[in-house]
Amino acid sequence: MHITLPDGKQLDLPQGATALDAAQAIGPRLAQDALAATANGELVDLMTPLPDGARITLITKKNPAEAAPVFRHSLGHVMSQAVGEFYRARGHAAEAIKRGVGPSIENGWYQDFDLPEPLREEDLPEIERLMREIIARGLPFNRREVQKAEALAQFPHDPYKQELIAGLPDDEAITLYAQGDYVDLCRGPHFPSTGRLPGSFKLMSTSGAYWRGNEKNPILQRVYGVAFATQKELEEYLHALEEAKRRDHRKLGKELELFTIDPLVGRGLPLWLPGGTVLREELAAFLKAQQFQRGYQGVITPNIGNLELYKTSGHYQNYSDSNFSPITVDDEEYMLKPMNCPHHMRIYASKPRSYRDLPVRLAEFGTVYRYEQSGELNGLTRVRGFTQDDAHIFCRPDQLKSEFLNVLDLTVLVLKTFGMNDVRFRVGTRDPGSEKYVGETSYWEMAEGQIIAAVEEVGLPYSVEPGDAAFYGPKLDFVVKDVLGREWQLGTIQVDPNLPERFDLTYVGEDGQDHRPIVIHRAPFGSLERFVGILIEHYAGDFPLWLAPRQVMIIPIADRHNEYAEALRAELHAAGLRAEVDDSSNRMQAKVRTAELSKIPVMLIVGDREAEAREVSVRERTPEGHKERKGVAFDDLKAELLERYKSRA
Amino acid sequence: MHITLPDGKQLDLPQGATALDAAQAIGPRLAQDALAATANGELVDLMTPLPDGARITLITKKNPAEAAPVFRHSLGHVMSQAVGEFYRARGHAAEAIKRGVGPSIENGWYQDFDLPEPLREEDLPEIERLMREIIARGLPFNRREVQKAEALAQFPHDPYKQELIAGLPDDEAITLYAQGDYVDLCRGPHFPSTGRLPGSFKLMSTSGAYWRGNEKNPILQRVYGVAFATQKELEEYLHALEEAKRRDHRKLGKELELFTIDPLVGRGLPLWLPGGTVLREELAAFLKAQQFQRGYQGVITPNIGNLELYKTSGHYQNYSDSNFSPITVDDEEYMLKPMNCPHHMRIYASKPRSYRDLPVRLAEFGTVYRYEQSGELNGLTRVRGFTQDDAHIFCRPDQLKSEFLNVLDLTVLVLKTFGMNDVRFRVGTRDPGSEKYVGETSYWEMAEGQIIAAVEEVGLPYSVEPGDAAFYGPKLDFVVKDVLGREWQLGTIQVDPNLPERFDLTYVGEDGQDHRPIVIHRAPFGSLERFVGILIEHYAGDFPLWLAPRQVMIIPIADRHNEYAEALRAELHAAGLRAEVDDSSNRMQAKVRTAELSKIPVMLIVGDREAEAREVSVRERTPEGHKERKGVAFDDLKAELLERYKSRA
Repeated sequence: MHITLPDGKQLDLPQGATALDAAQAIGPRLAQDALAATANGELVDLMTPLPDGARITLITKKNPAEAAPVFRHSLGHVMSQAVGEFYRARGHAAEAIKRGVGPSIENGWYQDFDLPEPLREEDLPEIERLMREIIARGLPFNRREVQKAEALAQFPHDPYKQELIAGLPDDEAITLYAQGDYVDLCRGPHFPSTGRLPGSFKLMSTSGAYWRGNEKNPILQRVYGVAFATQKELEEYLHALEEAKRRDHRKLGKELELFTIDPLVGRGLPLWLPGGTVLREELAAFLKAQQFQRGYQGVITPNIGNLELYKTSGHYQNYSDSNFSPITVDDEEYMLKPMNCPHHMRIYASKPRSYRDLPVRLAEFGTVYRYEQSGELNGLTRVRGFTQDDAHIFCRPDQLKSEFLNVLDLTVLVLKTFGMNDVRFRVGTRDPGSEKYVGETSYWEMAEGQIIAAVEEVGLPYSVEPGDAAFYGPKLDFVVKDVLGREWQLGTIQVDPNLPERFDLTYVGEDGQDHRPIVIHRAPFGSLERFVGILIEHYAGDFPLWLAPRQVMIIPIADRHNEYAEALRAELHAAGLRAEVDDSSNRMQAKVRTAELSKIPVMLIVGDREAEAREVSVRERTPEGHKERKGVAFDDLKAELLERYKSRA
Repeated sequence: MHITLPDGKQLDLPQGATALDAAQAIGPRLAQDALAATANGELVDLMTPLPDGARITLITKKNPAEAAPVFRHSLGHVMSQAVGEFYRARGHAAEAIKRGVGPSIENGWYQDFDLPEPLREEDLPEIERLMREIIARGLPFNRREVQKAEALAQFPHDPYKQELIAGLPDDEAITLYAQGDYVDLCRGPHFPSTGRLPGSFKLMSTSGAYWRGNEKNPILQRVYGVAFATQKELEEYLHALEEAKRRDHRKLGKELELFTIDPLVGRGLPLWLPGGTVLREELAAFLKAQQFQRGYQGVITPNIGNLELYKTSGHYQNYSDSNFSPITVDDEEYMLKPMNCPHHMRIYASKPRSYRDLPVRLAEFGTVYRYEQSGELNGLTRVRGFTQDDAHIFCRPDQLKSEFLNVLDLTVLVLKTFGMNDVRFRVGTRDPGSEKYVGETSYWEMAEGQIIAAVEEVGLPYSVEPGDAAFYGPKLDFVVKDVLGREWQLGTIQVDPNLPERFDLTYVGEDGQDHRPIVIHRAPFGSLERFVGILIEHYAGDFPLWLAPRQVMIIPIADRHNEYAEALRAELHAAGLRAEVDDSSNRMQAKVRTAELSKIPVMLIVGDREAEAREVSVRERTPEGHKERKGVAFDDLKAELLERYKSRA
């Protein structure tokens, strides 16, 4: 049979030859280095017979991205073998260990077990040690194709394997993989030998998982591991994980008293505590000031609306999964508002508009409600009620590009204000081959052209993604990368000629005729809940002065300095700064520690010398660590803080 | 029989004597002046036999307040007679005019008619003329007691009278009143003669009204009139009415584009247009700044809550009439929030509190929803969704008075800021004789004592109204009088130990034990919707600079000044002022008129001289009329406007 190599060369190999045979035909060095292969684009291992005519690529450790899912899966088998040895060493029969599925997943793998006694977290290091022993043994992975009867006979005591095998088609070969005395039902692929697997892995945790995900089935114990090609990558991953945990907005939200979720009030319905409310209101004030400068006008609309409104907009029909159940009022039905758009359309329609009035930019911090499965709810980032920094820009077609540019400019400014400098845009255009889009081709070409022209002008990275448009118009998503390298999709900008049509919106053109405006939907934060959740993680709770819920803690060294401290607090507070005094009976160092834990950016320590000279000792938290200044005149410091607050530095 | 006079004197009169007989017994002068009387506190006319032993007071024109309901009712009969003459003069038979009820009401009366052809608004002056003729005739009102059969026989062609009489008890005398040839079924009382009735009356309008208020019955035509003892009072009343119409917030709300109500969105659910949103946000910013200075902390809570929450608070059980129907979410039920209190109680309960932490003052501009009958809805002042400037103060009993004082002080400051200087307080205390109150007597005495002590300290007028407390604690309402002399009840302050009990709220006292805090509910504006509605009427749309949705209109005299005007606008706008340019092609005087109609407080008129010298001509609307200044340096004006804006002057 023939095999084609990446450079186009052909190899003649006997029928049933494997990728290892191909490697050997090329050279002994490659045969030694090869870990796996792809055949016609699909991962295969070195033990699997290749189909005739396959295009193959050999994978060595120079291709870690391709090798990773394979070694992760093989490490899963090694772990499974090690768990067996662990229990046998404790006097259990091999038959007592039964196994569910064990796939590779992002960064690692998991394996489900039905064990004679539960595996404890503290047993994981011993399992890891046994895994390293198995790796050291250099056991080859053997692949075998068998018939169903033989497969069933291989696992006589394991009801899970029996069930899995029974569910496989009768006429296809079933593959078993074995290393040493461990055999598993598996499609592969695997590394050639345990000896080739990286030692840079770690078992992470165990959890319960229903067999086949069905809560009527028994609960199995699921053991998770992660693995990377190098120890350095593993450590980076573990560090990032640790960091993500430290920054978890649910944890910080509780510690810093920013928000709470109370089942008696409702799941997915955050209660904003005073600290979180400050954050939210600072964000809103910042955006409102920007919007005022850019000619937006505020509106406020109710949180419910008549069902007829949502039937007109199409939200009722098209988003029924996320709508809450209707509320009956007299002979009408109402619904919690899932979007602000219909309300804004009606505001536009509430008076005649002329071409001279456009663009009309209506902005609202509008609280909307959308149903989410309770299992999907997560802190502030996945909720059932949230406030969008929403706006709808009603413009003429000839204003589309400049309005889009205005929105992009605002969005980039907003994100940079929070140090989110790694921003990219995804422009969703129509797939010209698809039938799902409504509207004239000329409209699509105009709108897509203007958006891309606007994005070009901004000069930030962007990609065009055909087929990602909404059915009625192109859109733009902005994606930011946080300090941990995680990407967050924030708001979307959409160009919408559909709602103006459904609500029959018009303006009188220069020609005296009625024309249809285009609507741009936009929300730079997306939702205040989600954005604050992301900000908490982004800053790890260490907010810049202007955002910090608690800005200044004044620490009297002894009780006799309380009065001076309180006088300073009152002055800062009257100037609009959020200042407190720690007049507890704790010692100064303990007060500093408490303020540190509360992540208060500025501490003012005051004792005899400071009180006498109307000075303060300043201790500030900065990204680089602490900054201390002694003997600072209080009036200078106050002016400095006010200036930083005002300029949002 | 005996009659007692106000001074305690007794009169001996024959059985069946009337108040007129009593007046005559006192003296002929009084008999001439007497218009009506009270017997044992009830109004009677001079023609009605007095009961033996009655205490009577005679009413003359020196008692206009007592006389007014009587002459209003008598004028109703005169109008009814005049309407009859009007139709007879047009060839209709007397039997063709049928009559429903015709009571006196506040300021006047109405009478329902079933007429052969509708009375038109333009017929009202002719009816008034006929009424004046009847008055000039000096017809005495004759009172007659008859049996049911005779009463029925009196109105053979009037089905309404037949129905009314049939409904009267068989064993009581029925009274008929007649003046001239006009007879009506009536309980009285009436003046002695049409000649004694004041000419200071006016017919106002007609409307349709179902017979007996039942929409299954025929519609009658209702004619309204008003009357006062003097022409001056009538004119004042008509002026106030005109003024109230001019100030009607629904009318101004539309003209000034402040809000709109759209049935497609929902009845009783205002949409705040850009202008109204500015008003609302200025109010909120003002109050938030005050609250920050007074140690309040902001919170934000969702617009819905689990039914269990409202069962815990008792709102579900106790306010079922105003609750919207529940929303089902998975296996839970939710409700639009009718009050913010339960959410705030749960925020208090979200962490342990110490006596040192109290008072905790949680404030929220919380939007709540309460059902109102659709017939009750009215602009912004009666709605189904509104935003309260709500706060809950959790304090120790020993902090009650100082916290109450803090709230009163804030409330008075708020009202005076809007020029509402005529404020009085109503303190609602318990009725010690009633069973409806919960809680210890000692608590009530403490709470009532502290509130009254706080009110005393403020030094404004107040009244104590026993029986006006809530069932769980005393309260205080504040009532303001607007420029038209109309009283508005604004927010309420309530002292509440009940919700802390229901939510089992505690703080750890100095003694290390758990104690129950007291809650003060308060809302200086009451609701933003209602307050803005009142403010619109209070200012007649002529808002002070800081509140004005449109603050500055720059008027270029000719097109060549547009550029200069736009430069000034951009500068004012960048400084945070709401400034516009009227660059329409209208002439300057027309532009001024347009700005006047929009009630924009400051106009800057710019021409050649101004542009050259960076000056403006200022035209301001003030309560006293216009103020004009020429040749004002623009930078000085900008500084002046900013200072006025900042100081909310």
